[in-house]
Amino acid sequence: MDSKELWTRYCEQLRVYPELGISLDISRMRHEDDFIESMTPAMNDAFKAMAELEAGAIANPDENRMVGHYWLRNPELAPNPELAEEIQASISKISGFAKAIHKGEIKTEKGEVFKNVLLVGIGGSALGPQLVADALWHPSNPMELFYIDNTDPDGIAKTLTQIGSDLDKTLTIVVSKSGGTVETRNGNLEAAKAYQKLGLSFEKHAVAVTCPDSKLDKLAADSGWLERMHMWDWVGGRVSIFSAVGLLPAALQGVDIQEFIAGAKEMDDLTRVDSIDQNPAARLALMWYASGDGKGKKDMVVLPYKDRICLFSKYLQQLVMESLGKEHDLDGNVVHQGIAVYGNKGSTDQHAYVQQLRDGLNNFFVTFVEVLQDYTEDSDNVSNLHVETGVTSGDYLNGFFQGTRRALFESNRDSITITIDELTPKSLGALIALYDRTVGLYASLVNINAYHQPGVEAGKKAAAQVIELQKAILTELESRSDDAGLTADELSAAIGQEEEAESVYKILEHFAANPGRGILRTGDRHPSSSRYKLAATE
Amino acid sequence: MDSKELWTRYCEQLRVYPELGISLDISRMRHEDDFIESMTPAMNDAFKAMAELEAGAIANPDENRMVGHYWLRNPELAPNPELAEEIQASISKISGFAKAIHKGEIKTEKGEVFKNVLLVGIGGSALGPQLVADALWHPSNPMELFYIDNTDPDGIAKTLTQIGSDLDKTLTIVVSKSGGTVETRNGNLEAAKAYQKLGLSFEKHAVAVTCPDSKLDKLAADSGWLERMHMWDWVGGRVSIFSAVGLLPAALQGVDIQEFIAGAKEMDDLTRVDSIDQNPAARLALMWYASGDGKGKKDMVVLPYKDRICLFSKYLQQLVMESLGKEHDLDGNVVHQGIAVYGNKGSTDQHAYVQQLRDGLNNFFVTFVEVLQDYTEDSDNVSNLHVETGVTSGDYLNGFFQGTRRALFESNRDSITITIDELTPKSLGALIALYDRTVGLYASLVNINAYHQPGVEAGKKAAAQVIELQKAILTELESRSDDAGLTADELSAAIGQEEEAESVYKILEHFAANPGRGILRTGDRHPSSSRYKLAATE
Repeated sequence: MDSKELWTRYCEQLRVYPELGISLDISRMRHEDDFIESMTPAMNDAFKAMAELEAGAIANPDENRMVGHYWLRNPELAPNPELAEEIQASISKISGFAKAIHKGEIKTEKGEVFKNVLLVGIGGSALGPQLVADALWHPSNPMELFYIDNTDPDGIAKTLTQIGSDLDKTLTIVVSKSGGTVETRNGNLEAAKAYQKLGLSFEKHAVAVTCPDSKLDKLAADSGWLERMHMWDWVGGRVSIFSAVGLLPAALQGVDIQEFIAGAKEMDDLTRVDSIDQNPAARLALMWYASGDGKGKKDMVVLPYKDRICLFSKYLQQLVMESLGKEHDLDGNVVHQGIAVYGNKGSTDQHAYVQQLRDGLNNFFVTFVEVLQDYTEDSDNVSNLHVETGVTSGDYLNGFFQGTRRALFESNRDSITITIDELTPKSLGALIALYDRTVGLYASLVNINAYHQPGVEAGKKAAAQVIELQKAILTELESRSDDAGLTADELSAAIGQEEEAESVYKILEHFAANPGRGILRTGDRHPSSSRYKLAATE
Repeated sequence: MDSKELWTRYCEQLRVYPELGISLDISRMRHEDDFIESMTPAMNDAFKAMAELEAGAIANPDENRMVGHYWLRNPELAPNPELAEEIQASISKISGFAKAIHKGEIKTEKGEVFKNVLLVGIGGSALGPQLVADALWHPSNPMELFYIDNTDPDGIAKTLTQIGSDLDKTLTIVVSKSGGTVETRNGNLEAAKAYQKLGLSFEKHAVAVTCPDSKLDKLAADSGWLERMHMWDWVGGRVSIFSAVGLLPAALQGVDIQEFIAGAKEMDDLTRVDSIDQNPAARLALMWYASGDGKGKKDMVVLPYKDRICLFSKYLQQLVMESLGKEHDLDGNVVHQGIAVYGNKGSTDQHAYVQQLRDGLNNFFVTFVEVLQDYTEDSDNVSNLHVETGVTSGDYLNGFFQGTRRALFESNRDSITITIDELTPKSLGALIALYDRTVGLYASLVNINAYHQPGVEAGKKAAAQVIELQKAILTELESRSDDAGLTADELSAAIGQEEEAESVYKILEHFAANPGRGILRTGDRHPSSSRYKLAATE
């Protein structure tokens, strides 16, 4: 294809949505000429399935649940007026709470105005809020956000150190949809201990975001936390950003959440159109299908050319892989579906892995995200510097994006480009909504349930077994005084868990590396010969 | 394989290196029984090639360069005493400079002690320093690090805002091996302007890290920067962490760089051993080969269970993909080699994409990085909290790691586990060195040059063309007073670049979105009909 033909193809295939300031270019995705036509019946079925989902069908059959995240952006869509009212009430409550915090109507235990937010959550309960916070950060934000998003005590300690003595002015939000996520429970307990250490009452600084009557909800109610915000079982964690999970921290940071919701609503309206020609989500979903043959044969590399939305790559990784990475299709056939997603930001990544993208394995397609406005907000720190006559840093960013897109295409690597005029609450909301719908449509094309995550249970169960095993090991060691200690083999036999010798060894090694745990290791560290005993028995 | 057989396999295949506190477990990588034997001749050749490389061979033939990053960890290996002396002198200079900064012997322009470091660099000049800073952060660090690692004016403004008025106590290090990286040049200019705006002389706060006599080196010499630190053309950017690129910011942060270097040297000694049975890098390289059939058929998912080394995933992404992602082998055959790498951190990622890893596409192998010691440093913020009787947050982190490893293996997904006793300068140095060698050995197995990056040139050239085109557009628009403005087609014709209409359109759209640039857009935003003119002509 020469540059004239490419330009014609670009003009034909570009879709501009001026009211949202977003456009979608699929001109650099190669596919058979009749591909779109051949997929039209399947896409029409996907449109139909999506209409049913939005109307309240049990679109997540394995969990017997409705899939309602679209209602959060347009409560009128909710299948009954009570739900619509609940959604509206939730948004009002969030706005009112944030306003009261900002105005100091709700004060810290010491009677001061809150200045920080510490969000405790993991996965869908953390990544969305982090994305919004980064993307819409502004020097004038009334509150600064911190996160505990793992059960790593070292990481938790670092966050608490960074907050330091300002913990007394920190509002902690504990987010767990189910209310039983153990990593979040641990983060909650660690944070509570830190408040206590400073002589503060945790409950006077704490808010829960969870489903009604969950473990967390009851804890917050019983302990008299500042506030409880509710969500619903028909909102999946990875699409919960327009529920209190995303809206509460955003509102506290000072983001205009009405605009954020409005952007998503407008995009939902655009992606509800039953037309492959007009619907950007349908166009995107078809390109994913074309690239990977409907089997995820190619990885999706996400390259936003904007530092602020660097996390968008990770957000899509979670959304796409958790939604589409499934063993069975809706008819129960084993399909092992999915699309692997990774990325970071341009042009930084040109100095990392773009070498492989251009020259190496052709096992991917790229999604570029281009933001036309160089400065997200006017601010004193906007330099508008010309690094050469008439040329700014932003021109180079744009030049590198264009250059990489071209170089990849020339070496037969495909790409999609999403262009955003300005990064605002509205356009960010629209961008997220675009991908919500794309994932839903693609899931229909490949006939899978995009709204459950059965595969994560096995790892959780296995982890719980490790914790039980650890308890048994400690009990056994405490009951003995073998001077020489026991090997992993001996110890696993002693607790009647011969088949768990490896796990026993790994638990003992973890104990031995942490002197506070009171377990001594002797021997050469080989798993079959190292010995372990209580330090007290020495 | 039942659990008894697995335990036997684990005991046989685990390699523990107690002096470094690192072990490598490949028992969960499936391969044919005779695989190791069949690869032995090829690995012996790889050992030989590595010995020649370390002895100073032109191991990067395309650029006619030696490959000397191993000498940085053990100057005695350098092919001549002059080089050895240069390396030693460089390390002494870095240590001395950092000490003088910490003691206030080198003061800010205002006569105060420096408290921040602003590192301006991209790719290999930024990611390594960022990894070290995160991994070895401690509350008592004498200096805090900030980064400009892109040419995004918005991102740069955010960093400068965060530093704020403390810029007068900020030492800026500009890092560019070649001295001509345009993103870094832009970051340098933007930073310099920020100092100027506060009435400060940039040069009194600036240090250059670059090859001798580069553009940057000359600029720093001519402008009288505080200091210049040199590196060498035989150190690739992605392996430059043991040169001034990584050592200077680390030393300024307060990291014991002698220990960091010593850890790498010890690992180099271990990975120089010509024995597949004993050499951990050889074992790793063979597992990469087995998993992807020597063709990168499987992605490498990196899951460190430790927040502090979350960036290790990104570091390996750069190291592996830029080194191995090559079009040609050393004999000139088209091979399109590479291994795609992505990851973030556990257990957080269990709530993101582990669903797909367990149930979806089986197109990857996992590398777990386990750190046994829960708290990297003793500190007041160590809670040692028991979240259940006898169970800590760290026990859960370990439990989730073990659980995920097991759940993946049960569903036929392979994994490697690297276990580190404690995260220290020494173990981090060793971990990095392990992967340097693994990449080198794997490159030999697949017969490619791991030390150049020819594929990034095309994107850079195309970007430069965009900047030139932009200049021509501005000149043309300034010379005209078309009231109606010009379309992208008309403008590209006017400057004699008809074939660049698309790029012209994209440049004009970028201008129009930034009011300060003085370009007005009229029309419906469609690429073939939108019109653009100078704002002044209205």
